[in-house]
Amino acid sequence: MLKVDRSLLNKIDFEKGNGLIPVVTQDVNTKKVLMVAYVNKEALEKTLETGFAHYYSRSRKELWKKGETSGHVQKVVNVYIDCDEDTLLYEVEQTGVACHTGEYSCFFRKLAEREDE
Amino acid sequence: MLKVDRSLLNKIDFEKGNGLIPVVTQDVNTKKVLMVAYVNKEALEKTLETGFAHYYSRSRKELWKKGETSGHVQKVVNVYIDCDEDTLLYEVEQTGVACHTGEYSCFFRKLAEREDE
Repeated sequence: MLKVDRSLLNKIDFEKGNGLIPVVTQDVNTKKVLMVAYVNKEALEKTLETGFAHYYSRSRKELWKKGETSGHVQKVVNVYIDCDEDTLLYEVEQTGVACHTGEYSCFFRKLAEREDE
Repeated sequence: MLKVDRSLLNKIDFEKGNGLIPVVTQDVNTKKVLMVAYVNKEALEKTLETGFAHYYSRSRKELWKKGETSGHVQKVVNVYIDCDEDTLLYEVEQTGVACHTGEYSCFFRKLAEREDE
């Protein structure tokens, strides 16, 4: 159960992305960015009600609780909203790993880096 | 100019999001999540070529260099790609502030927090 700022919650613009908004999930302790997923209104409400991260799967077209089968749940500590009210940031305590590949973060591969370092 | 892993670059699935993919931008020093924006192929190429963050504006429908008018540029240090190859993470050195409101990060408002803390 999270303490929610309801007036801020009502400002979220779900329509811009056809009912879905992206969520960045960050480890509250290490500050590592773990993943990006999507929520519809229902998935966000489940997250706020239960205190565990829920998302909406665009491929399976269904609500899912992160870690439901793997046990790799995410306990939500804080939820931030961006200036445009169309993106969220979950700060979480990650049990196990965030990525389905077994890596801690989904961003485990480097595409590019500055050359002068 | 960034050193790029071309085989990884070619894997990016731009079509899933109608030519656009989301980018999480994180301060490389503080690890603060600064913003989420979108890139098309051209904006990503400009970023990799110049070493400064470029995005694609969904509302203005155009490529933009972050900080072009404000001077609040983002020098890119690393670019990571997620497991699904449809989301990027830019680690940047932020000049000035990231948010158009004058806040350092776009995620400056808390929507919810855990009650037992």
